Amino acid sequence: MRVIVADWGTTRFRGYLIENETVLDQVASDEGVSALQKGQHREIFLRRCGHWLNAHPDAPVLLVGMAGSREGWVEAPYAACPAGPADIAAALVSVDLEGGRQARIVPGLFCEPIPGASDVMRGEETLALGAGVEDGLICSAGTHPKWIEMRGGRLTRFATYMTGEMYALLREHSMISRPATEPEDPAGFALGLDAAHRNHGEHGVGLLHLLFGARAAVVSGRMGTGLLAPYLSGLLTGDEINGALAQFGRPASVTILASEDRAGLYVQALARHGIATQVKSPKAALIAGLARIARHQVRPDG
Amino acid sequence: MRVIVADWGTTRFRGYLIENETVLDQVASDEGVSALQKGQHREIFLRRCGHWLNAHPDAPVLLVGMAGSREGWVEAPYAACPAGPADIAAALVSVDLEGGRQARIVPGLFCEPIPGASDVMRGEETLALGAGVEDGLICSAGTHPKWIEMRGGRLTRFATYMTGEMYALLREHSMISRPATEPEDPAGFALGLDAAHRNHGEHGVGLLHLLFGARAAVVSGRMGTGLLAPYLSGLLTGDEINGALAQFGRPASVTILASEDRAGLYVQALARHGIATQVKSPKAALIAGLARIARHQVRPDG
Repeated sequence: MRVIVADWGTTRFRGYLIENETVLDQVASDEGVSALQKGQHREIFLRRCGHWLNAHPDAPVLLVGMAGSREGWVEAPYAACPAGPADIAAALVSVDLEGGRQARIVPGLFCEPIPGASDVMRGEETLALGAGVEDGLICSAGTHPKWIEMRGGRLTRFATYMTGEMYALLREHSMISRPATEPEDPAGFALGLDAAHRNHGEHGVGLLHLLFGARAAVVSGRMGTGLLAPYLSGLLTGDEINGALAQFGRPASVTILASEDRAGLYVQALARHGIATQVKSPKAALIAGLARIARHQVRPDG
Repeated sequence: MRVIVADWGTTRFRGYLIENETVLDQVASDEGVSALQKGQHREIFLRRCGHWLNAHPDAPVLLVGMAGSREGWVEAPYAACPAGPADIAAALVSVDLEGGRQARIVPGLFCEPIPGASDVMRGEETLALGAGVEDGLICSAGTHPKWIEMRGGRLTRFATYMTGEMYALLREHSMISRPATEPEDPAGFALGLDAAHRNHGEHGVGLLHLLFGARAAVVSGRMGTGLLAPYLSGLLTGDEINGALAQFGRPASVTILASEDRAGLYVQALARHGIATQVKSPKAALIAGLARIARHQVRPDG
């Protein structure tokens, strides 16, 4: 079965023509939802993917990501956890293309980690469904890493960490990292992981203190300036992992969806906890997840 | 005894002519150290305070704050904890004024909270010495709040939190607080304190998760947009207090040095832990601390 899909993010539009989990053709542009006004989305989609619509008149069309956010084509309300491919296929939101044809937007997921608390995702639910994990823990490690618990092929709970954005805030806007110099010494990452242990458990001293301590170590001459940026990265990553293991327990293994460079940091950090890792490509997981949702959409019992 | 003092910070110069703990006269300007080049400091000081030097030819001159930083008049190396007035008076660093007269710069303090970890302060040591606390816990709640343990009139340990700077980073540069609207609903502060409890102890879920959760609560319609900014303030303040109590134990009472508005937030947050508070003026503590250091400088046994 051929399917036309688009991963429509904040800054990028990526269209794919897929058959099962194979990409037959692809297009990409900078027309992310943050660059568009309400009402432009149909025109952009037809301009980029219209030739596939004509060539494959029976192919379902699925959109995933920020296309379904308040700033997107149309808001697709968050579906609730636990959710598997059938639940998500049942919650797809349709938009008109042309000639009676429709595209269906994959909704994001809402999760209440404890009563009264909140977490949301848009797009990572599709990666999780394509990661090949029926039961286990997935870490989708983008700018806002998401730890996702899978049970029986459904997403049961998840927790988002603002780790990547926090690192960028500290590097670009904070006095904390002002003494940092190039070239970076990657040994700082492991030192930051060490420091994160001080924030674990009932004697945890507070991430806001450990971040200041990184600067203090440099301005007092205790740490080299080239170590500072990787140290901050290690401290934030280690603190994220402390929290994720506290929420989801300590698994034997975690599946990491990330680019190779970023995945390597998680492999290193989790190895210190004695946890094995499988690294998978986020793009392959996305395509596989969309193919699964499309199969459920076409054959609800599939 | 009359003393000429200056609180020379990053953005402000504040000079005082004091007698014991009474301010007889004062000057202020925007000539903080970040606005000055090396070599300008003497001229600025003489322009602002030269009339006091002439009128009080025997008055000691003390400078405190960023005047002693690497970017200041001259770098005053951090003294080590534990430190009392005598230790700090013995570590003063002299700079030439004119006609053989000297000003003395109060050094900052370095502290090793655990072996290999680091913390530093410049200026808050003087506030702590003037806070009237011989034994107890002080919270000097500026942009980078410092929790200071006093034993026998000396600063034994301290821990800095980047709480105020983090709040500013989140408000000004992060997607976390983008849905926040005016007018703010101050009830959000207590909700943020509630959330901070989820990050306390061995099941702590991670501050980076709770920050994202604040945004998730708003975009999923679970929390009003006017609550978001005070919620973030409460979450950060509560997490700071969790960490400080883990490091310094749970005292019956904490002395807070802060403006009334900011102090009120700490009073509210500590009351939830059953901890009483005394609020004191940072300016009064600074003047009292400088007077103590000056007495030790003039009469080392005083």
